[in-house]
Amino acid sequence: MKRIAVLTTGGDAPGMNPAIRSVVRYGIKNGLEVMGVSRGWLGLINEDIKVMDHRSVSGIINQGGTILKTARCQDFFLKEGQERAYNTIKKYAIDGLVVIGGNGSFAAAHAFYKNFKVPSIGIAASIDNDVNGIDVTIGADTAINTALDAIDKIRDTATSMERIFVVEVMGRDCGFIALTVALAGGCEEVMIPERKIDLEEICQDIVEGNLKGKISWIIVVAEGAGNAEDICRKITEMTSLETRAVVLGHVQRGGRPTAFSRDLALNLGKAAVDSLLKGETDKAVGLCCNKITLVDFETAIQKKELKIMHMCQLIRDLS
Amino acid sequence: MKRIAVLTTGGDAPGMNPAIRSVVRYGIKNGLEVMGVSRGWLGLINEDIKVMDHRSVSGIINQGGTILKTARCQDFFLKEGQERAYNTIKKYAIDGLVVIGGNGSFAAAHAFYKNFKVPSIGIAASIDNDVNGIDVTIGADTAINTALDAIDKIRDTATSMERIFVVEVMGRDCGFIALTVALAGGCEEVMIPERKIDLEEICQDIVEGNLKGKISWIIVVAEGAGNAEDICRKITEMTSLETRAVVLGHVQRGGRPTAFSRDLALNLGKAAVDSLLKGETDKAVGLCCNKITLVDFETAIQKKELKIMHMCQLIRDLS
Amino acid sequence: MKRIAVLTTGGDAPGMNPAIRSVVRYGIKNGLEVMGVSRGWLGLINEDIKVMDHRSVSGIINQGGTILKTARCQDFFLKEGQERAYNTIKKYAIDGLVVIGGNGSFAAAHAFYKNFKVPSIGIAASIDNDVNGIDVTIGADTAINTALDAIDKIRDTATSMERIFVVEVMGRDCGFIALTVALAGGCEEVMIPERKIDLEEICQDIVEGNLKGKISWIIVVAEGAGNAEDICRKITEMTSLETRAVVLGHVQRGGRPTAFSRDLALNLGKAAVDSLLKGETDKAVGLCCNKITLVDFETAIQKKELKIMHMCQLIRDLS
Amino acid sequence: MKRIAVLTTGGDAPGMNPAIRSVVRYGIKNGLEVMGVSRGWLGLINEDIKVMDHRSVSGIINQGGTILKTARCQDFFLKEGQERAYNTIKKYAIDGLVVIGGNGSFAAAHAFYKNFKVPSIGIAASIDNDVNGIDVTIGADTAINTALDAIDKIRDTATSMERIFVVEVMGRDCGFIALTVALAGGCEEVMIPERKIDLEEICQDIVEGNLKGKISWIIVVAEGAGNAEDICRKITEMTSLETRAVVLGHVQRGGRPTAFSRDLALNLGKAAVDSLLKGETDKAVGLCCNKITLVDFETAIQKKELKIMHMCQLIRDLS
Repeated sequence: MKRIAVLTTGGDAPGMNPAIRSVVRYGIKNGLEVMGVSRGWLGLINEDIKVMDHRSVSGIINQGGTILKTARCQDFFLKEGQERAYNTIKKYAIDGLVVIGGNGSFAAAHAFYKNFKVPSIGIAASIDNDVNGIDVTIGADTAINTALDAIDKIRDTATSMERIFVVEVMGRDCGFIALTVALAGGCEEVMIPERKIDLEEICQDIVEGNLKGKISWIIVVAEGAGNAEDICRKITEMTSLETRAVVLGHVQRGGRPTAFSRDLALNLGKAAVDSLLKGETDKAVGLCCNKITLVDFETAIQKKELKIMHMCQLIRDLS
Repeated sequence: MKRIAVLTTGGDAPGMNPAIRSVVRYGIKNGLEVMGVSRGWLGLINEDIKVMDHRSVSGIINQGGTILKTARCQDFFLKEGQERAYNTIKKYAIDGLVVIGGNGSFAAAHAFYKNFKVPSIGIAASIDNDVNGIDVTIGADTAINTALDAIDKIRDTATSMERIFVVEVMGRDCGFIALTVALAGGCEEVMIPERKIDLEEICQDIVEGNLKGKISWIIVVAEGAGNAEDICRKITEMTSLETRAVVLGHVQRGGRPTAFSRDLALNLGKAAVDSLLKGETDKAVGLCCNKITLVDFETAIQKKELKIMHMCQLIRDLS
Repeated sequence: MKRIAVLTTGGDAPGMNPAIRSVVRYGIKNGLEVMGVSRGWLGLINEDIKVMDHRSVSGIINQGGTILKTARCQDFFLKEGQERAYNTIKKYAIDGLVVIGGNGSFAAAHAFYKNFKVPSIGIAASIDNDVNGIDVTIGADTAINTALDAIDKIRDTATSMERIFVVEVMGRDCGFIALTVALAGGCEEVMIPERKIDLEEICQDIVEGNLKGKISWIIVVAEGAGNAEDICRKITEMTSLETRAVVLGHVQRGGRPTAFSRDLALNLGKAAVDSLLKGETDKAVGLCCNKITLVDFETAIQKKELKIMHMCQLIRDLS
Repeated sequence: MKRIAVLTTGGDAPGMNPAIRSVVRYGIKNGLEVMGVSRGWLGLINEDIKVMDHRSVSGIINQGGTILKTARCQDFFLKEGQERAYNTIKKYAIDGLVVIGGNGSFAAAHAFYKNFKVPSIGIAASIDNDVNGIDVTIGADTAINTALDAIDKIRDTATSMERIFVVEVMGRDCGFIALTVALAGGCEEVMIPERKIDLEEICQDIVEGNLKGKISWIIVVAEGAGNAEDICRKITEMTSLETRAVVLGHVQRGGRPTAFSRDLALNLGKAAVDSLLKGETDKAVGLCCNKITLVDFETAIQKKELKIMHMCQLIRDLS
């Protein structure tokens, strides 16, 4: 193995840049030439690719986003798109591929590997933390702290104006961000896709709390479990209490990665290069029980089960 | 003057707590007894009032929101509500009132003063910076930095995914937050209520930029100038480019006040007490040309004119 | 078990407040009466103790420090001091003790348990992350992010002025903060107590780097491995290059706990109460391999071994 | 005027990058060619200079430090150094110079102008806020908020452990940072170069406070007024109370500029270009009474007088 390429795909996550830095510098340190592909699969299709050196990843360790950019690429789902990507790989004599992204990215990498057998290792990076077999992905810790910072701020107004807030956080089909943030934020309730929600019950709690003098209330809702505006409207209908919606949105994707997101990214970058050098392929590197492990792409893209009941219970017990 | 009362009304703003701290401690230092009224005018109507001492404002200098809470109070617009408030003032022998809030609060204070002649001084606190005759209100600097922090994060994704973002910020009828943040955030365009907006022209710029390779774009819109979702839809219709809306919402109200918001609050708290002691009334204290000055309530509640054209131009020149 | 007491001892750590909140609210939820002891062992000796209710821990989840305060207490090392503490426990009919602190606190708790057999469970909270048998303590993640934030800022000047910086971080005898921060900060070198340091070698690297155009340099030193000022002086002597020392100091102890520090604290508070209810004693609860586990006080206070060589190597490989 | 050059000198300040961005983009917009000089005067001497375009200042608006770097340059104090700098200016046909820096930088620019009559405009950037005739320099607001953030964190420990802290902040001969931060941080005392300090009196206050139950204490000291370690030692000697020193140091120089620092920088960048185009020279642009004004270099480098007594008094009144 002499030359590898690295790319970022799917939604950007804070920590992708330190992951790139690690792949590039650790790869070079280990005698490899490392090429950077722009805009994910699209760049592979369009030959948007260049050699990276030690300097090309300077000053990015604390930057959100990805210097390699990322893009959606419908063409890569088609055989023809993959063929063009493979032509680029042959043309540049690329012996291995490091794919930084989430489970969508790994599904694409898996399909590409099945068809063209280019050695490929994934690095699990996604704020949603929805990669199966992996405890925590690059970017999740940063997104959670960003959302928590917002909730701490909202709490100031919730308490001062004695209002109910419904705060919608990201996470797609996964309630991880919502649960973690609701607990850390001292929120009163959380609504996640993994658990059936009884809004009437919540409203009853609110009304009862109100009678006891508990007037401010923050309910965190995962985007996969409902829409903050809708929920607000229903709560107001059921309780006659003023309710406000806040949708944190894309703010959660950006920003300086936290120490945890960075150190994870740096370690996984090294692990991805080591794995390619050892002949591994069709797998993602990720953190599992505090150890860096390899997970088959096929496993990684399955639906992840969250162990949540104890967290939901703790949120209620402490609120 | 032996006893004064302090209250916070209207939307909460970061810096209200240091303002309370200053009124209480500086008042006590100057021989006054200071009472705190809960929930603004409502607390005055309901006799929700208590004596404050040095300790009761400990540890709040760096807290958002207001320990005195704030509430809307329709009753205070009625003569009967004001009479009940006045009864409380007589009952507790309150010689002066410090009203911390924005122009809505000052309109109420002005009406109350006209009817009952209780000496009243306002402290201009509002994230919207919409108090006429005053350069900058308590809380505006904090809200602006919060919004800017969000825009910096959104920029990471805008650049990485090469997308257009429309970011809606607070400010009610006033474009101050939007302008300040759009300039500081290096945003490409700003939409404010003070200036007619030609969305078609903006879309033309976007399409032209796109052809030249400028693909990411952040447009800041003041809540008084439009709705981020609507604007996104129209941009997508006109340009066929993917566009995302982010509504920063109540996050902008909370959080640790900045140094500027705190120092302003502390100075204005002192100035309010000094003004009451000097026999001033029916006026607000605020910063004007770096000096603390008094502005008649009647002036303060007029529509504030922003000098904006040079800022709008600078945003475009530098983008 | 009807009544328990909770106290914080040793250096404060961000997350102690959410831990207190969890012990109090989860304890009450489970039918216990919970008392809060002020200033650690000192409060137990002096009967500085009071019943806590649901409200007494409101609004503290996002606050650094500890509302119960903490203090050094030489008297508790003496039999007489412990006897007085035990008298308080008998007087208030306390059936169990939750001790929030680091390994010094656990050593004291262990001694006290041996002598007086009061059921005691520790919660591992310390920025230094030096509790044996436990992967990560409450507060470490927050302290690390605070130090990292400082290093990111220092990097701006190091790059702009092309200077060498030696940054001293906390951690007592443990290099955990230093290692984690040096990696995440993209620092060039790290000096920790667990590894013999060859300053001459570092200086040689600096001089060689300098010839190749690498002029800015950040060296992180754990307080247990040396003094930033001394190291600066030596580097200047050996390399003739301008060098600056920064000692981050107590800034690292405070601040809003991160999501991780809070969630850990809330889970460990619950676990401590559960453990007491199950009849456990003389043990600390902590996170080990992502699971909450019990560790004998006797084990917890042993010297913790860091697995560090791969991290030191990675720091060098990526710099 | 066809071609101008921009450079940054002296200590770096957060906001220098947006100032560079503004000079470059606004200059180009106005038909000028803009060259960037590296490492201040040194780059002028060594011909370290290159043309900048719109893209070369992309993505720097939210970055601390300066992309043009800065350096001390003893040679520029000598006629020979200035002659070499002037040769560069002639060689590259530079018609005007924008000098971003503090009063040291303006003294050098003034001397250079007297000798070689190259039109020169300064932009006041310095965290110390020590430029005479100008209310506030670029970077001061950011440095103050960084120091305040640190003091808020230290307060957590000061309160929890009931300790006295002496916190040393930057500012050279100027007490501006110290005063502003001490007020905003709710600190008990401040020591600045502009006012004679009676440490014995402070210690007496501490001892008296201690008797009344006030045990935690934060004293801010400007670097020009003393050394935190020394002051700690003396306080411990006089009061027998445990005291801790924290020297915030270079952390205060870096980091993302605040909204205020950025908007000021962007406006001053424009103003500097406008001033050169109008034929102004030997002057600095800066903010005075909320307006951008020109100040003669000769005035700007005089000792700035702070109006401080009311702030010192307010700090004491509110503590």
